[in-house]
Amino acid sequence: MVDPAKILSETNVYGLYNTFKVQPSYYQISMADRSKAAAEVEAVVKKHSDSVFVQAYLTRGFKSESDFLLRMHAYEPAAAQAFLTDFSATSLGRNSKATLALIGVTKGLNHTTKEKSPNLLNALKSTSYSADAPKYAFVIPIDKSPEWWNKTEKEKLAMMEDHTIPTLPYLVNVKRKLYHSTGLDDTDFITYFETSDLVAFNNLNIALHSVSEMLYNTRYGDPIVMGTIMSVTDVVEAISK
Amino acid sequence: MVDPAKILSETNVYGLYNTFKVQPSYYQISMADRSKAAAEVEAVVKKHSDSVFVQAYLTRGFKSESDFLLRMHAYEPAAAQAFLTDFSATSLGRNSKATLALIGVTKGLNHTTKEKSPNLLNALKSTSYSADAPKYAFVIPIDKSPEWWNKTEKEKLAMMEDHTIPTLPYLVNVKRKLYHSTGLDDTDFITYFETSDLVAFNNLNIALHSVSEMLYNTRYGDPIVMGTIMSVTDVVEAISK
Amino acid sequence: MVDPAKILSETNVYGLYNTFKVQPSYYQISMADRSKAAAEVEAVVKKHSDSVFVQAYLTRGFKSESDFLLRMHAYEPAAAQAFLTDFSATSLGRNSKATLALIGVTKGLNHTTKEKSPNLLNALKSTSYSADAPKYAFVIPIDKSPEWWNKTEKEKLAMMEDHTIPTLPYLVNVKRKLYHSTGLDDTDFITYFETSDLVAFNNLNIALHSVSEMLYNTRYGDPIVMGTIMSVTDVVEAISK
Amino acid sequence: MVDPAKILSETNVYGLYNTFKVQPSYYQISMADRSKAAAEVEAVVKKHSDSVFVQAYLTRGFKSESDFLLRMHAYEPAAAQAFLTDFSATSLGRNSKATLALIGVTKGLNHTTKEKSPNLLNALKSTSYSADAPKYAFVIPIDKSPEWWNKTEKEKLAMMEDHTIPTLPYLVNVKRKLYHSTGLDDTDFITYFETSDLVAFNNLNIALHSVSEMLYNTRYGDPIVMGTIMSVTDVVEAISK
Amino acid sequence: MVDPAKILSETNVYGLYNTFKVQPSYYQISMADRSKAAAEVEAVVKKHSDSVFVQAYLTRGFKSESDFLLRMHAYEPAAAQAFLTDFSATSLGRNSKATLALIGVTKGLNHTTKEKSPNLLNALKSTSYSADAPKYAFVIPIDKSPEWWNKTEKEKLAMMEDHTIPTLPYLVNVKRKLYHSTGLDDTDFITYFETSDLVAFNNLNIALHSVSEMLYNTRYGDPIVMGTIMSVTDVVEAISK
Ligand code: HEM
Ligand code: HEM
Ligand code: HEM
Ligand code: HEM
Ligand code: HEM
Repeated sequence: MVDPAKILSETNVYGLYNTFKVQPSYYQISMADRSKAAAEVEAVVKKHSDSVFVQAYLTRGFKSESDFLLRMHAYEPAAAQAFLTDFSATSLGRNSKATLALIGVTKGLNHTTKEKSPNLLNALKSTSYSADAPKYAFVIPIDKSPEWWNKTEKEKLAMMEDHTIPTLPYLVNVKRKLYHSTGLDDTDFITYFETSDLVAFNNLNIALHSVSEMLYNTRYGDPIVMGTIMSVTDVVEAISK
Repeated sequence: MVDPAKILSETNVYGLYNTFKVQPSYYQISMADRSKAAAEVEAVVKKHSDSVFVQAYLTRGFKSESDFLLRMHAYEPAAAQAFLTDFSATSLGRNSKATLALIGVTKGLNHTTKEKSPNLLNALKSTSYSADAPKYAFVIPIDKSPEWWNKTEKEKLAMMEDHTIPTLPYLVNVKRKLYHSTGLDDTDFITYFETSDLVAFNNLNIALHSVSEMLYNTRYGDPIVMGTIMSVTDVVEAISK
Repeated sequence: MVDPAKILSETNVYGLYNTFKVQPSYYQISMADRSKAAAEVEAVVKKHSDSVFVQAYLTRGFKSESDFLLRMHAYEPAAAQAFLTDFSATSLGRNSKATLALIGVTKGLNHTTKEKSPNLLNALKSTSYSADAPKYAFVIPIDKSPEWWNKTEKEKLAMMEDHTIPTLPYLVNVKRKLYHSTGLDDTDFITYFETSDLVAFNNLNIALHSVSEMLYNTRYGDPIVMGTIMSVTDVVEAISK
Repeated sequence: MVDPAKILSETNVYGLYNTFKVQPSYYQISMADRSKAAAEVEAVVKKHSDSVFVQAYLTRGFKSESDFLLRMHAYEPAAAQAFLTDFSATSLGRNSKATLALIGVTKGLNHTTKEKSPNLLNALKSTSYSADAPKYAFVIPIDKSPEWWNKTEKEKLAMMEDHTIPTLPYLVNVKRKLYHSTGLDDTDFITYFETSDLVAFNNLNIALHSVSEMLYNTRYGDPIVMGTIMSVTDVVEAISK
Repeated sequence: MVDPAKILSETNVYGLYNTFKVQPSYYQISMADRSKAAAEVEAVVKKHSDSVFVQAYLTRGFKSESDFLLRMHAYEPAAAQAFLTDFSATSLGRNSKATLALIGVTKGLNHTTKEKSPNLLNALKSTSYSADAPKYAFVIPIDKSPEWWNKTEKEKLAMMEDHTIPTLPYLVNVKRKLYHSTGLDDTDFITYFETSDLVAFNNLNIALHSVSEMLYNTRYGDPIVMGTIMSVTDVVEAISK
């Protein structure tokens, strides 16, 4: 079985984010049959657990475009694709419409490295998430302008330091993960966050809107996907009621 | 039960705005069954009344994308999500398509505070809504540009004062409420208004288009949602005819 | 009954423009039943004739997004909403999808007034529509940029004079009506025209593209709705064949 | 009957371009019934042949938004609308969705006239299409910026001469037709081309991208509609298989 | 039969890329009937193999807009259109919706020719793909701004050299193919890549974002289509489960 802690911390791992909107046809299936959906989906998750780690989120009510979000991590995109192909053959999958698909890959640090920004790296390493288990997750695709990409590393480093400094206070109550997507998908980065403190998360985002790096973001969300963190079973049951 | 007056005036409260378009399938349900829809929705509202305050608006005819709007206030987004999940299982919910979902949080004043702008604060406090009960509500999402967010507080304050001065005459006939959404949703602010005087409301908006703050708005509506203020029962009955 | 001539010439009147696309389901209704649709719609128009003046246009073939346009004038938006709610319960309404909804209000002159531009006002008043009854109508939403709204009245007046001078020759063969929508809807103005001379109308629009005011228009149409002017009965019959 | 050669060469003629996507419901009609569709459509074309000249193109496979394109020429838009209303009542029309509708009018030359640009006009007149009957047609809507429209005729003429010179070599293998749409539709021009030499057509378009006039185009296609030139009967048969 | 190696390396060849989303109706066909779909599609591919070379890719899970991609090469677009018309009459085609269609033509080198850039051409020729058979393919439409097209060849050549130099290291693990579409479709270029090394492909794209040529790209993807390279049979079977 894929080790969640390991795959979530390694580089060269593919992250796939797929949102789905349950179609009216799902609710024409009898309640009795819908109550078997969670087990059916869990079986598919288990079948692929050697190569794909799957997490689920309830987005219903937060986003009009979707009801739930699946997050997959795999060492090979084709493995996640195989899982999604099987998922789409479950009764829930058959009656859900994919409304967003994002793919990215984890890589090492580009800017705040030991060589280029040792103090900042220390600051980042010295603090860790200490709040209760987070309740909500956010997926925010980010695109940077050609002007950004044409800057020297020195210029980009300076701006990424300005990006990082105001975020340090949020290390304690916001978890984060970064994926690189340039060329793999229509976004440069996928950013992912978990938190229970939404006012803090709003303040963090305002802080990042207020540094000069923001002048080079051509996409910030669009969509921002917000979901409640739940087990796969709980998500399927919530939407199967 | 959630106290409406309290939750509508506190900070750290989540406001959710969801519009719905009734699907043709709803009108294939017999008129007799549709006539029970209002009671069914009211029951769901009541079930969640300890954690969510729900209001409704008829948007049919004003907006092509929706027939009605639900406005929810809760101390926890998951509570509103639970309400919406139950709502979507009513006969009206099953046959309605969510077409817009916005979420924001209430916070204290940023600019026109006692410290930074005492006179303006006094002026704001000295006038209050004195017209008859308002008939219409407007939801207007607002986004500000990276250039705005990169300004100093002094610069932003000056522009927010320019924003506020021409609006003072409208305090008597326009009610308003502000939510912060940066990072929580694809908008920076959700603004909400109630009024019966639409010419005044048009003039107010023209006034706000004519100050320099407007040069930094990258989204102003899109959509502007206009609805008639009604009880939940009345809205459901109007669309169930 | 609402007096058409009066309501079409007064200020503080709400104009609503709604386009509809007939759905395939309409043509699954028997021809016999479809032939009753015009009478059914006329009855709804009549029921509301004390508070709403309704006109209809055939857009089929001119616009892919719609088959017909309803134009409503009322002293209160809720009255038009009540009409549209009843309309949507007719067999045609049930089987039509609203594809655009615009609302605006009529107001007095802003720029070419007796005080500010007496000569131009005289020129405007001295000529009137003298061609045959117009065959076609156009609805063109217009948005102006924040830069426009931040100009002084003197600057705006000068540009509106430049707008008006080249349009004078078209007073004889183009009818027009202006609504203000800032804050009420996602457009600043709704402009409405009637004409039989489409080459003249094309030339008029080219003339208005060629003055500096055009540099401040951020929306010009999008969509431009073109329809054939018909009675409500004729429109319903044309699409019911 | 409308004379094709005449109506295709006169000014003050309305050109309408409508694309359609055949809906899945069409293929639930029996093959036997579908095989009558061509005759049914031809009958409608014939019925209106006194006022409308109709041509057809197969777009299936070239464009995801449509399967076929109808091109109509009429001296009065209402005549084309009447044809399209009848067409939409055929079995093919009933089961096709209009996905694009464009309308424009033919006018005399604006720039390369005998007075303003005699040499160029001579060059244009001295060469004509000499290749085999063209196989493909392209419809390309073009919009010009407010900056363009605010230029003097002298400036525009100079740029239109730069537009025309590199196109002269393509007169022998590309046919073209121009419609004016400002104010009539959401585009300034509809351009239409026929050719069998797609590499030449690609080179022609590159040449026109490379002159300064291109800096003032705010829309170039979007969509470019490509179709195979066929008889109405052949198009209907191709999509009825 | 069309020779794949030949048609994939010649100029004046048309490349068509079509993505499809399988509709829910497909899964209402019995599993037994769906299991015949691959043979049915293969038969259509074979029928047209004298004029069209067809390849297939599984996009399900990578893209929400599609489940599979067909890539066609033909000496005449009408030949590919004939194939697609037959494909759309198979049980899979009938129940799939075309969601994207792109067409372009192969041409000789424009910039890095023997005359203009001999050293670079040598470098390009001296290295070839040496990794294992690639697993994934990417289709990325590219549009260049009017400013780009108005540059001199000397200026464009300099920038294309800057484009090419950082890409040389990727010749060993990324295959590529370029099509020209200006005027034929709503994009200037279609670029196509095959690789198994997605981190390398991400780095390659970042390298190309970081040269000045990127400042003239107005479209880069939108969509980027990612698919798993498979035989036609395998793709049809994967989505028919
Ligand atoms: C606790 C909060 C956060 C912290 C501590 C943080 C810190 C960092 C650091 C240190 C980097 C540089 C990584 C490297 O060296 O390659 C980075 C990159 C990045 N961060 Fe944040 N960040 C936070 C929140 C956010 C948020 C809320 C967003 C946007 C929604 C965001 C978007 C990005 C993006 C797009 C990059 C990649 C930029 C590039 O390489 O050009 N971050 N972040
Ligand atoms: C009676 C009418 C109005 C009054 C009295 C009013 C007053 C104010 C005041 C005092 C603030 C500053 C709050 C603070 O200090 O944080 C504010 C903020 C704001 N107002 Fe208004 N306003 C009115 C109408 C509107 C309208 C019609 C809109 C737009 C549709 C609008 C959009 C906003 C936004 C987006 C902010 C937050 C700006 C920021 O923090 O950057 N307001 N308003
Ligand atoms: C016979 C043709 C026309 C005439 C005589 C005419 C005349 C005028 C006049 C006198 C005004 C100023 C009203 C005032 O003082 O408040 C005005 C405003 C306006 N006109 Fe026209 N117009 C014509 C056609 C058009 C057309 C074709 C359009 C665009 C489709 C258009 C768009 C507008 C708009 C948006 C305004 C409001 C501008 C503002 O207040 O900022 N007009 N027109
Ligand atoms: C054989 C190829 C072509 C020739 C010979 C040609 C020639 C001309 C000429 C002489 C005019 C000026 C007409 C006048 O005086 O009013 C003109 C206008 C125009 N052409 Fe072309 N053209 C060709 C291809 C194209 C193409 C491929 C496009 C774009 C897809 C195009 C777009 C236009 C537009 C939009 C105008 C109107 C411009 C304006 O009046 O502002 N032409 N063309
Ligand atoms: C192994 C990687 C790559 C190599 C070796 C490479 C090399 C080249 C070369 C030599 C040319 C010039 C062709 C000519 O002379 O006409 C070219 C053109 C082009 N390349 Fe690349 N390229 C690579 C990857 C990419 C990628 C990843 C993209 C974008 C997704 C891209 C987009 C283009 C485009 C659009 C052109 C045509 C530009 C124009 O003619 O204006 N290339 N490439």
